[in-house]
Amino acid sequence: MSSSLTAAETIARAAREAYEASQLLDPQERDLALFKIRDLLLERKQEILEANQKDLDAAQPLVASGKLSSSLFSRLSLQSPSKFDTLLTGITDVAALPCPTDQVTYARELDEDLELYRVTCPIGVLLVIFEARPEVVVNIAALALKSGNAAILKPGRESAHTTSILSSLIQQALSSTPFPSTFIQTVSTRDEISALLSQDRYIDLVMPRGGAALVRSIKDQTKIPVMGHADGLCHLYLDESAVKEKAERIVVDSKLNYPAACNSLETLLVHSSLLSTLWPSLSLHLLANNITLICDPPTLSSIPSNSSPHLLLASTPETYHTEHLSPTLSVMVVGSLSEAIKHINSHSSHHTDTIVTEDEKNVSVFTKGVDSAGVFVNASTRFSDGFRYGFGTEVGISTGKTHARGPVGLDGLCIYKYLVRSKAEGGHTAGEFQQEGGKKLVHKVIEATKAPF
Amino acid sequence: MSSSLTAAETIARAAREAYEASQLLDPQERDLALFKIRDLLLERKQEILEANQKDLDAAQPLVASGKLSSSLFSRLSLQSPSKFDTLLTGITDVAALPCPTDQVTYARELDEDLELYRVTCPIGVLLVIFEARPEVVVNIAALALKSGNAAILKPGRESAHTTSILSSLIQQALSSTPFPSTFIQTVSTRDEISALLSQDRYIDLVMPRGGAALVRSIKDQTKIPVMGHADGLCHLYLDESAVKEKAERIVVDSKLNYPAACNSLETLLVHSSLLSTLWPSLSLHLLANNITLICDPPTLSSIPSNSSPHLLLASTPETYHTEHLSPTLSVMVVGSLSEAIKHINSHSSHHTDTIVTEDEKNVSVFTKGVDSAGVFVNASTRFSDGFRYGFGTEVGISTGKTHARGPVGLDGLCIYKYLVRSKAEGGHTAGEFQQEGGKKLVHKVIEATKAPF
Repeated sequence: MSSSLTAAETIARAAREAYEASQLLDPQERDLALFKIRDLLLERKQEILEANQKDLDAAQPLVASGKLSSSLFSRLSLQSPSKFDTLLTGITDVAALPCPTDQVTYARELDEDLELYRVTCPIGVLLVIFEARPEVVVNIAALALKSGNAAILKPGRESAHTTSILSSLIQQALSSTPFPSTFIQTVSTRDEISALLSQDRYIDLVMPRGGAALVRSIKDQTKIPVMGHADGLCHLYLDESAVKEKAERIVVDSKLNYPAACNSLETLLVHSSLLSTLWPSLSLHLLANNITLICDPPTLSSIPSNSSPHLLLASTPETYHTEHLSPTLSVMVVGSLSEAIKHINSHSSHHTDTIVTEDEKNVSVFTKGVDSAGVFVNASTRFSDGFRYGFGTEVGISTGKTHARGPVGLDGLCIYKYLVRSKAEGGHTAGEFQQEGGKKLVHKVIEATKAPF
Repeated sequence: MSSSLTAAETIARAAREAYEASQLLDPQERDLALFKIRDLLLERKQEILEANQKDLDAAQPLVASGKLSSSLFSRLSLQSPSKFDTLLTGITDVAALPCPTDQVTYARELDEDLELYRVTCPIGVLLVIFEARPEVVVNIAALALKSGNAAILKPGRESAHTTSILSSLIQQALSSTPFPSTFIQTVSTRDEISALLSQDRYIDLVMPRGGAALVRSIKDQTKIPVMGHADGLCHLYLDESAVKEKAERIVVDSKLNYPAACNSLETLLVHSSLLSTLWPSLSLHLLANNITLICDPPTLSSIPSNSSPHLLLASTPETYHTEHLSPTLSVMVVGSLSEAIKHINSHSSHHTDTIVTEDEKNVSVFTKGVDSAGVFVNASTRFSDGFRYGFGTEVGISTGKTHARGPVGLDGLCIYKYLVRSKAEGGHTAGEFQQEGGKKLVHKVIEATKAPF
């Protein structure tokens, strides 16, 4: 344990030192380094694909024995030409994004020759834990580099051969840049993560991607701020005024477009007035789409007899706390919009919740009343995504209430610092502003996008 | 213990419910509620001052026996007419600030009739722990209300009589507004705080103000995000190019303007070239100002013999990790700017650090290289303050690296949510954008400061 801790401290401290050393570099160096990484990965494509084949060979028996899903297996593969190209394009896409740091977000003249600038800057050292998708190593490394953050990466173990060579090539590419090669480091075991989680002196932010159990276990183990989401328990509320075709389209898309995603629908709330109108035909439509419905007594008893009784189940209170991640939908009746909002605020994972309505007043009440990262109107929960929002890419999705919420782009990897500079002959003291009849702070807006020093 | 936990859960849940209920109110109601609070406090001034006198009477023996400092005692008092007026003006000043919520910070047309708005909103439920200054109860309640956050307040116990009546008057005023009176609650014991720190289901952010020990103990006890600063260990680096009068003014102001403040100077770093030039006269100037100097051997041996040998001490490594909060200054020599930055980054509390220099290149290196909330040039560390920065007021000062950094104004009490709305005939599904030859997201900028629903 103590030697593992020491190893973790060495890694974390190296990341911190790499971060601090990098602060003096021109931000353009980050883009140049991204191109060097891209070039080296392209040059060594054959080795990368061979390593990837080893991961695939090792995973094959796991798929056969049902220990690994075929969708995880397909995500593990870099073998198709388009997948490798996408990995490379991902790097140049990130390089092409606007620089998120060194931007002035608040500037004031405090006194003659005394100026204040709030300037965006990297957070520092990131620890990112993610699933077994080899291209994510490259993607996260690119985002960290672009935002000026040093990073320690822990990819899923099923991708170990691939991520190991990708990581060493990234470090090799960095060694031909002004960045220390320890700017991006990769660790491979859970023990290392446990030890790193105590390095709050050196690590500023932990971003776990993956299952709810992983995220909760990490939050329990560390004092470092954690950004991410444990669950994606998204709701759709069918308002009294909902119309049929819209409801059908949005419910089916929210549930079936990609059931394993965190922004997929899990619970459908049906206004009681719809039990005898819209709900019977909607329920048949959902069953016809092979969606299993777990219903409370009122919604269950309002479903017409049909050919899919095997897709109908009775709910328990636990049903409405369950993230199915499969073509299964929890259904319950609510008596009012206000009851729907109360249910959502107490059961949602605060990821994304949507209303289907034609009522303008209810649009306003729902968007104000629901306390979630994404609050949607007549749109599928599946739109909750950094790429769809126009961020170019996303580091993860946060359901926390501080720093960043919802899909997190490069901005979420930045914070700011306040620069104050005096150009007065004798500098500036606070005392000058505290004397009777003394100077007063002026707080005059300075229009600037960059600090002039 | 278990009954205390239950009480805490009741308080925390009431705060959450009050917060959720308040989300449907027009933000202007917050200002109206602030005026009602102000009016009631004015009406009941006599009772408040009587309660305050009880606190003062109870504190008097503590001051006499040295258990309470006279500066804390004077902060406890509301008896001078100007102090009570300031308390009332504080409320109207906060009401006059721009509304920090319901502001659009990002808006895009994603497709025809599909729009995305990122809108600022309150964080939710705040738990604020602070010192025994009665006006702070009113100030924090006003900031919470203005930003739409429900709050649970824990004032220092020496102010218990005053804060108890202030809190009950605030609740009484709220009961004549659309806000639930539980929107602002006050607790009075440490046990209640411990129990509240486990209510992460209901409380979104903890803000401890006060000593380093308090802040650390709170961070150790909770999974709720904590915003604040444990220490204020600020540095001043005297660059090779520093000139005498500027150095004297800024060092003396940074150290003596208010030694007990977190933004006061604690460590002076002296470039080695100054040991035979600027330092000898500067050291005499500091001694003449009754500043105790705790020096390393090079700076100590370069001080000319003088009349204040009792103000000179030899440093140990611990000296440079010490927040004196008194007219005492740690001093050490550094061989270069880069050494100064390394020392600051590893010893600073990352609150505020300043350089005194005439060298433009060193301005750039220092402001880029120092990783602190405030990085200053030729200005006193004492400028690091929300009022001086032009925020009108501050909730606290954060030395964390996420959410808010430095002095925190109303913005630091807000986060945002993403609203997506379709006005298309059939609503919007993600699937429409995934078909071969299907629609493409357009991400066209929408110029809007308010969401149109």
